[in-house]
Amino acid sequence: MRFVLHLIEIKKGGRCLITVIEYSRDFFREVSIEEIDKLDVVINKSKVTWIRISDLKDRETFGKLAEKFKIHPLTIEDILNVDQRPKIEEFQNYTYIVLKMFKFDKSSKELSSRQLNLILGDGLLISIEEEKSKVVDNVLEWVKASRGIVRSMDADYLLYLLMDVVIDGYFIVLEEIEDEIDVLEDELTSNPSPSLLHMIHKLKRQLLQFSKNMWPLREVVGTLERSGQRFVNPQTTPYFRDLYDHTIRVIESVETLQAILSDMLDVYFSAVSNKMNEVMKMLTMIATIFMPLSFIAGIYGMNFEYMPELKWVWGYPLTLSIMLLIGVTMILYFKRKKWI
Amino acid sequence: MRFVLHLIEIKKGGRCLITVIEYSRDFFREVSIEEIDKLDVVINKSKVTWIRISDLKDRETFGKLAEKFKIHPLTIEDILNVDQRPKIEEFQNYTYIVLKMFKFDKSSKELSSRQLNLILGDGLLISIEEEKSKVVDNVLEWVKASRGIVRSMDADYLLYLLMDVVIDGYFIVLEEIEDEIDVLEDELTSNPSPSLLHMIHKLKRQLLQFSKNMWPLREVVGTLERSGQRFVNPQTTPYFRDLYDHTIRVIESVETLQAILSDMLDVYFSAVSNKMNEVMKMLTMIATIFMPLSFIAGIYGMNFEYMPELKWVWGYPLTLSIMLLIGVTMILYFKRKKWI
Amino acid sequence: MRFVLHLIEIKKGGRCLITVIEYSRDFFREVSIEEIDKLDVVINKSKVTWIRISDLKDRETFGKLAEKFKIHPLTIEDILNVDQRPKIEEFQNYTYIVLKMFKFDKSSKELSSRQLNLILGDGLLISIEEEKSKVVDNVLEWVKASRGIVRSMDADYLLYLLMDVVIDGYFIVLEEIEDEIDVLEDELTSNPSPSLLHMIHKLKRQLLQFSKNMWPLREVVGTLERSGQRFVNPQTTPYFRDLYDHTIRVIESVETLQAILSDMLDVYFSAVSNKMNEVMKMLTMIATIFMPLSFIAGIYGMNFEYMPELKWVWGYPLTLSIMLLIGVTMILYFKRKKWI
Amino acid sequence: MRFVLHLIEIKKGGRCLITVIEYSRDFFREVSIEEIDKLDVVINKSKVTWIRISDLKDRETFGKLAEKFKIHPLTIEDILNVDQRPKIEEFQNYTYIVLKMFKFDKSSKELSSRQLNLILGDGLLISIEEEKSKVVDNVLEWVKASRGIVRSMDADYLLYLLMDVVIDGYFIVLEEIEDEIDVLEDELTSNPSPSLLHMIHKLKRQLLQFSKNMWPLREVVGTLERSGQRFVNPQTTPYFRDLYDHTIRVIESVETLQAILSDMLDVYFSAVSNKMNEVMKMLTMIATIFMPLSFIAGIYGMNFEYMPELKWVWGYPLTLSIMLLIGVTMILYFKRKKWI
Amino acid sequence: MRFVLHLIEIKKGGRCLITVIEYSRDFFREVSIEEIDKLDVVINKSKVTWIRISDLKDRETFGKLAEKFKIHPLTIEDILNVDQRPKIEEFQNYTYIVLKMFKFDKSSKELSSRQLNLILGDGLLISIEEEKSKVVDNVLEWVKASRGIVRSMDADYLLYLLMDVVIDGYFIVLEEIEDEIDVLEDELTSNPSPSLLHMIHKLKRQLLQFSKNMWPLREVVGTLERSGQRFVNPQTTPYFRDLYDHTIRVIESVETLQAILSDMLDVYFSAVSNKMNEVMKMLTMIATIFMPLSFIAGIYGMNFEYMPELKWVWGYPLTLSIMLLIGVTMILYFKRKKWI
Repeated sequence: MRFVLHLIEIKKGGRCLITVIEYSRDFFREVSIEEIDKLDVVINKSKVTWIRISDLKDRETFGKLAEKFKIHPLTIEDILNVDQRPKIEEFQNYTYIVLKMFKFDKSSKELSSRQLNLILGDGLLISIEEEKSKVVDNVLEWVKASRGIVRSMDADYLLYLLMDVVIDGYFIVLEEIEDEIDVLEDELTSNPSPSLLHMIHKLKRQLLQFSKNMWPLREVVGTLERSGQRFVNPQTTPYFRDLYDHTIRVIESVETLQAILSDMLDVYFSAVSNKMNEVMKMLTMIATIFMPLSFIAGIYGMNFEYMPELKWVWGYPLTLSIMLLIGVTMILYFKRKKWI
Repeated sequence: MRFVLHLIEIKKGGRCLITVIEYSRDFFREVSIEEIDKLDVVINKSKVTWIRISDLKDRETFGKLAEKFKIHPLTIEDILNVDQRPKIEEFQNYTYIVLKMFKFDKSSKELSSRQLNLILGDGLLISIEEEKSKVVDNVLEWVKASRGIVRSMDADYLLYLLMDVVIDGYFIVLEEIEDEIDVLEDELTSNPSPSLLHMIHKLKRQLLQFSKNMWPLREVVGTLERSGQRFVNPQTTPYFRDLYDHTIRVIESVETLQAILSDMLDVYFSAVSNKMNEVMKMLTMIATIFMPLSFIAGIYGMNFEYMPELKWVWGYPLTLSIMLLIGVTMILYFKRKKWI
Repeated sequence: MRFVLHLIEIKKGGRCLITVIEYSRDFFREVSIEEIDKLDVVINKSKVTWIRISDLKDRETFGKLAEKFKIHPLTIEDILNVDQRPKIEEFQNYTYIVLKMFKFDKSSKELSSRQLNLILGDGLLISIEEEKSKVVDNVLEWVKASRGIVRSMDADYLLYLLMDVVIDGYFIVLEEIEDEIDVLEDELTSNPSPSLLHMIHKLKRQLLQFSKNMWPLREVVGTLERSGQRFVNPQTTPYFRDLYDHTIRVIESVETLQAILSDMLDVYFSAVSNKMNEVMKMLTMIATIFMPLSFIAGIYGMNFEYMPELKWVWGYPLTLSIMLLIGVTMILYFKRKKWI
Repeated sequence: MRFVLHLIEIKKGGRCLITVIEYSRDFFREVSIEEIDKLDVVINKSKVTWIRISDLKDRETFGKLAEKFKIHPLTIEDILNVDQRPKIEEFQNYTYIVLKMFKFDKSSKELSSRQLNLILGDGLLISIEEEKSKVVDNVLEWVKASRGIVRSMDADYLLYLLMDVVIDGYFIVLEEIEDEIDVLEDELTSNPSPSLLHMIHKLKRQLLQFSKNMWPLREVVGTLERSGQRFVNPQTTPYFRDLYDHTIRVIESVETLQAILSDMLDVYFSAVSNKMNEVMKMLTMIATIFMPLSFIAGIYGMNFEYMPELKWVWGYPLTLSIMLLIGVTMILYFKRKKWI
Repeated sequence: MRFVLHLIEIKKGGRCLITVIEYSRDFFREVSIEEIDKLDVVINKSKVTWIRISDLKDRETFGKLAEKFKIHPLTIEDILNVDQRPKIEEFQNYTYIVLKMFKFDKSSKELSSRQLNLILGDGLLISIEEEKSKVVDNVLEWVKASRGIVRSMDADYLLYLLMDVVIDGYFIVLEEIEDEIDVLEDELTSNPSPSLLHMIHKLKRQLLQFSKNMWPLREVVGTLERSGQRFVNPQTTPYFRDLYDHTIRVIESVETLQAILSDMLDVYFSAVSNKMNEVMKMLTMIATIFMPLSFIAGIYGMNFEYMPELKWVWGYPLTLSIMLLIGVTMILYFKRKKWI
């Protein structure tokens, strides 16, 4: 994972996938078109028009789109540059919102992100996915099936729905990371290897990257929640307030996970020094037992002429017994000290 | 304890326990009903109506409740989702407040929480407990017995009373955690085991979770204290200001306990390295005493033909004496260095 | 010291000590009464009335006091609950201020606090001490002796005087703690024992408790300093501004002492690992000197038949000389490495 | 690198390089002059006048410049003092902006900076480079080639372009530092030498210096973005908002790199203590294997007369076999403990 | 250095040194008087009157001064109490500013401070130095010599000049500290002694004390810079803005130095544990070489009757050769592991 953000990377070739969805309380139409020129919609307040672009590969399309809906060139740049932070920008005739969708890859332990661009106008929502996304599919199904109150609400409620599924996705990602942490935690006390330390730091960085996106997201949702926002009806405001609550909870979960990882570093270093302690204890025990014994053996290995013990018949077995006694005493001593 | 917050978990089956309490200065009535349909109350300013729902298990009940009292669907969602942070939300015809009640389990050393939902309207308070709670029982007794000024006050004072008992409960939880910390502290210097480190981190996380709920609580109480709040009479404001003070003191206690746990980590690592020091000292003493002695024994174990000492009658006892002298000197040296 | 704050502890039995002081530029009267019923004062702007209650033991007295001066029941609760943080609360007819007076016990190294309650009305100051306090005595003497400008000022200046002596007392407490720190610092490098670590943490906690009271105090003084405060005349404002300065200096001193204690932890751990280093050096020196020597002795302890050195007359003394040489060389080597 | 900022260092001698560029939608003129006296331009709103001074060596020139364009003496001081933080200052007839351009020297691992001063007036931009800079050349080319919309915009857009290329340069610098960090990271686990620690600290300091410039830069761009800024047209505002976004991303990248370096310190200390662990294991293994063996040898080196084993024919080979057995057992034991 | 700030210390005896300077564009007069009674000046807007008091030893003088210029008693207290933080206080007829001048003593490595009090009135500046200061002398010379624009500006510009030289002095102090740090840094890797740690902590504390004065100074300058300040003319505002910039740079330099000292602590602990590593390596090498050798010697020191090797003529030299081989192999092994 590279951390320095890269400049605009324009994707060429290929083609966008454009779906136009129009709906009101009793009306639903979904049309897929391949070229932006064929797009022919009338925007009015009596229905919601949702233009979904799900696979952005073509710069030209956006040029035409920009012309049709009077979108500022900078917004087009931001859409094509998939390296944005979540943000909200108000323009004269629309509000532009950038969201990030995250995925946690369990094998490489890395977070990847996809950008979701949302343009909210009067009775109009344009959504541009970096890659076709399942969560947007789900919302489309939801609208098609006329579930909840979506069909009787305005385009701002559709925006709410899309943001809601994106933020719900964060909880799933965080749970996957939490599972990963649980696995590490088990290994931590049993085998505190340097590679484990590496894994802890890696997860810490993923969470850091993740949390870097959450703070601006909070601002985005906070802006939408505040009343007086253009294109957002007062009766939708409580929903954004609810979303704001979710965002706060995501942030708190991230902070808790970060605190756990921090604690794990503590435990790691503690486990390492415990191991050292074990090694040192072993060395000390060995030395404490055998040094006195070797010393006794050394004494009776001296070549003095007048060493009466050497002549005794019981000298040797007695010495061996004393050595045994010393050894056993030492072992009992270490047992009582709970070294063994 | 899982730290990533989970999405709405709707409890099905079972039945709610509904109690309707109506009171004014000279009047008190308490009726228990089993079905919301049988609820038949007239809300007016001449008395306080308290609807207590104490065991939420039934989704439908809330649907009917919402209809009767014009409660926003999002509030119903929040009530059923027992994973809320403390918060206050103003709606057109009521103010919705979420509180958490905590319990510290001494055997598992874990905090658990129960949600208390409060809906304050004009002359009306609806309280919804996740589980029937003793502290709410106490408040009911208090009202029944007409203690203090509660019977001559409005519904906002009842809200104050409920919040007061909940916040007083926090002090009890914190004292239990403090007792736990005291136990750990005693063990810390005597036996700094890795499991102790684990316990310290566990308590740290419980406190972190706890404190995560205190900051939004402060905001909730702060909002109620500020004048200009609907449904809160000016003469009740000083009581909420008092509550605010209590909240601040809870937060300060949490911070102090967190600081103590942090210090305990310091002490833990210090105790571990002290133990290492002890081990090393022992090794060094053993080596320092026996290495020179073994060396002397080694000298007189050499097989040179011309070693006059070996022929002396006093050679052996003299050597032993010298060894004894060296040993004793060493021990005295270590005594003076306070190693023993 | 328990850190979780306890709930109201009502002291029963006993009796309050009430002194009524009335003064203006040319007038001074001091009357001690035993029962609040006998209190008979007329409050007017032509003189200052100071009611000093210096030993609160009686709940009833306050009930009567509250009635006489229309004091809110919550204020009475706060006075009786001696576990308040410094705070200022404005009521319709008076401003209520809580201060803490600290004492540092040199033998137990613990801070204890006493509460001082001040009620400022129009031409009236009621002071309630938890325990009779010398600093309040001093202010009384000051007024009696008509020192400074106090007799020509209003009740707000008397409030200033009382606050000033209390805050001056903080500097004395901090100096005592600083002396304690100096003592610890001397011991730190000479004898870094675990009990020293314990003492550092203890002082850290005392300072933490202390500083927890300073931040709200700053707010209290800041509120009084701001113009537009009821019962505070514009010409007294500069005095409160001066007090605010003192408070800031107290806070800075606390922070500096905390930083010093933090540094001392560094030094402690450094001193511990230095000691370990010393131990390791000793072990290494002993092993490095005696292992080669013992090896040489071992060689000539071998029983090979054809070892010509053993037959030489000079074999033994030469070997001893070589051993001596090796030993001395080693010692010189360690001297040059500055291990000895 | 010295970190205390130095006072004004006035460069004497030499000569400034002055280029005057005038352009509008259909018009472009570029004139190089050597002396400020020869400068003869008419500033009006129908075209943009860009005075580029690209090598400031002459104090006098600025005196004359100041006179011509009514520039405040303090601005002149700031231009000559190349030790400024990024800042924006509004004067009556112009806005003065200081930017820093950074270069990372891969061999010395040091950041150096060059100052770019920009004076924005009505239809006028004066740019003063500390040293002739390529990025400014590029902007000049861009204007000459009439790329993008620059020729149809006002002087504020030219300011935007210059700031944009400067900020884009930051990403390049950060990538170079990131490459450096990657190199260090590889070395970290293989060879944790003190010189590596030194390198980590060095990079940390470079990033600190860098980030110290980013926060005021954010303020500068934020000021320009806010509407109501003189000399900045409303249609240019979105471009500055875009620039603000870039600045935030630079800051986030810096913070991420700083977090990585912090983690590396962790890893470094972990690697050092791992090495120590390895050393200790080796010592313990050697001692554990050879101490018992030497002890056995010591036993049969004793000179007791009655040691029956010594007389056995199989005594010696059996003893050797037992020793071998012990040695092999120990080695297997350490293998199982994964020490080898 | 004592860190708890002390209360007012009134210096008695001695005499103040008073100089009265009056100047306008074409007029300059300097008079030294010994007693405040002899002071006889007329303050008007046509000229600047600077009263310089440079050695405050006499309490009475200030009483008279206060009377003459209507200075508030609290200001007099602040002047006599040389333990102030930098601050600005507005009174009805003047603005009172406290600055600190620092000196770094290279031998004791301690910062000391002197207080400079400034009272700015309408056409009047009173400066009171704790001790006669060279930097104030320099400003006087500057005015006398009519350098720069000082003679054509008002008293606020004189204030600016005095503050400018004081703040410039901070850079010099910081450079001296930086030199000190450089010296420590060199010693750090070569000889990480506990006394070095002590020095690092000492410098850290000096910087802490220093920085504690910089934050309020920033406020002081920030207040002066803001327009709408009495006694400060709009055309002087840019000069105070420039001063504000300098203050920010001082603060940043302090922070950088603090970061460097923090890093040095890292390096210190790393160097200590590196030393330990060295010691351990030495011990391990010695043990690893001599333990196997001694074991071999031990084997051939055994007294078995049937040890054929002992009878061989080549037994002894072969054993010695094997020992040599083992020793050399070990040394080569450690060389390859880069321990030697």
